[in-house]
Amino acid sequence: MIHFNNVTIIGVGLIGGSLARVMKTGKLAGTITGAGRSKATLEEALGLGVVDRIAENLGEAVEGADLVVLATPVATFEAIAREIGPRMKEGAIVTDVGSVKGRFVKALEKLLPKNIRYVPGHPIAGKEKSGVSESTEVLFQGARWILTPTERTDPEALAAVETLCRAAGAQVRRMDADLHDRVFAAVSHLPHVAAYAMVCTVAELNTGSEEYIDFSGGGFRDFTRIAASSPEMWRDICLLNGNNIIEMIDRYQFSLNMMKRAIRTKDSNKLEGLFRSASDVRKGLK
Amino acid sequence: MIHFNNVTIIGVGLIGGSLARVMKTGKLAGTITGAGRSKATLEEALGLGVVDRIAENLGEAVEGADLVVLATPVATFEAIAREIGPRMKEGAIVTDVGSVKGRFVKALEKLLPKNIRYVPGHPIAGKEKSGVSESTEVLFQGARWILTPTERTDPEALAAVETLCRAAGAQVRRMDADLHDRVFAAVSHLPHVAAYAMVCTVAELNTGSEEYIDFSGGGFRDFTRIAASSPEMWRDICLLNGNNIIEMIDRYQFSLNMMKRAIRTKDSNKLEGLFRSASDVRKGLK
Repeated sequence: MIHFNNVTIIGVGLIGGSLARVMKTGKLAGTITGAGRSKATLEEALGLGVVDRIAENLGEAVEGADLVVLATPVATFEAIAREIGPRMKEGAIVTDVGSVKGRFVKALEKLLPKNIRYVPGHPIAGKEKSGVSESTEVLFQGARWILTPTERTDPEALAAVETLCRAAGAQVRRMDADLHDRVFAAVSHLPHVAAYAMVCTVAELNTGSEEYIDFSGGGFRDFTRIAASSPEMWRDICLLNGNNIIEMIDRYQFSLNMMKRAIRTKDSNKLEGLFRSASDVRKGLK
Repeated sequence: MIHFNNVTIIGVGLIGGSLARVMKTGKLAGTITGAGRSKATLEEALGLGVVDRIAENLGEAVEGADLVVLATPVATFEAIAREIGPRMKEGAIVTDVGSVKGRFVKALEKLLPKNIRYVPGHPIAGKEKSGVSESTEVLFQGARWILTPTERTDPEALAAVETLCRAAGAQVRRMDADLHDRVFAAVSHLPHVAAYAMVCTVAELNTGSEEYIDFSGGGFRDFTRIAASSPEMWRDICLLNGNNIIEMIDRYQFSLNMMKRAIRTKDSNKLEGLFRSASDVRKGLK
């Protein structure tokens, strides 16, 4: 097993809080410090016993830490790296849980001092509700945890973070950071944008006395479930992974056009073929 | 309460079978006859005790029936109406559970003899799996059941069908047939087409060694769940309600373009506003 004397988690929300719980339950950490901008959140985390101590000043929070976890929104990573880099002890490991990787990995490698060992990561876990009150040590059970090491990544630090991910119950997968961003633009970011667009489309029809949305059944409700995610988080992801997402929207519109054409020309075989192949994909998924 | 001496259900699948169970449990019918093209399905229904007798010949099946329920695919309704019309007894009620109404209602009113009382309906119920083995008397509990009467609909027959829907636990809502088709193009047919298109889009990226779809999380899985529905049924719905669905795909593409533009121009406020309004819609839904 693995053990870190001092761990600092910056951003004690659903993901940061859950990882803290994993380390507490598994006795993987001596002292866990929770850090972040919101005093209320930190005090809540402390009250719940998720962390052992809290600190609002990030520089102070990371002093003496063997492991620092960045679990704030991706857009804050660069500023945080600038702030904590000079205060961390030599050889300390930094990992992050950001859902966009490519250029942030490059930026953080440049911003962090040479003697800090950075291991970029992305756990594919979450739930509808966010916040430390929703954190649980089983959040990562059976989930994938992508690590996107570069040629600069220290192998020992990479192995340590991998062991931590596995201790959380996750399956670790190594992947190139740019490929990661393209893959997640397709399987995660596009579906969210598509769900938001769907809800906007139907909501716009709600004029006059008939409220279209009142008649929504199972299908549409799945869309609204996806679209209930944090608007700020998805705004950031769209801005940070924009080029990949635009490519995926273009591809999606191409598929929609194909369906529209088949409907317009009443091409029964084409439609059934398109629907059947999509339906078959589902059968291939666990 | 209401009671029908002889009921014939044409198409004893999930919906037809569930309605038969409702009538059996509630003692709303004397004898229930199951009818349809597939002998195997009918025998399964008989074996499960969902119906009291079965008949492959539709004309024979409806003779003496006080209530006939059309629960086959919508595309078959006109041919069935031609076949059963002359064999039904005077004053018998016909209702259907078709998910497209507009022109079928008009067609069936023309095809059925004047002395047959047709009440067009559409229960908003279903589940992932289909077939009589999945039927249950609670399928309609809390669901909406849309009835789309016209000026030709007999008020007494309408009231009788309404009573039956309520006995099934459904909330009845009357609506114009053409409006029904437009509303369901938006809240049901569009989401299904969008889900099929999404799964096709991501599946197409699965070339080479990286299987994009392997990394799909909760968001994408909701899409595949919707896209797992019957390809034949959705092919038919797209062909039968094509104009409305095309309008809704166009509206959807407009929303997607708006999102794409906001991403391309890095319009942070616009993106957050779009996402927030969609997220708020969700909060308004039960």
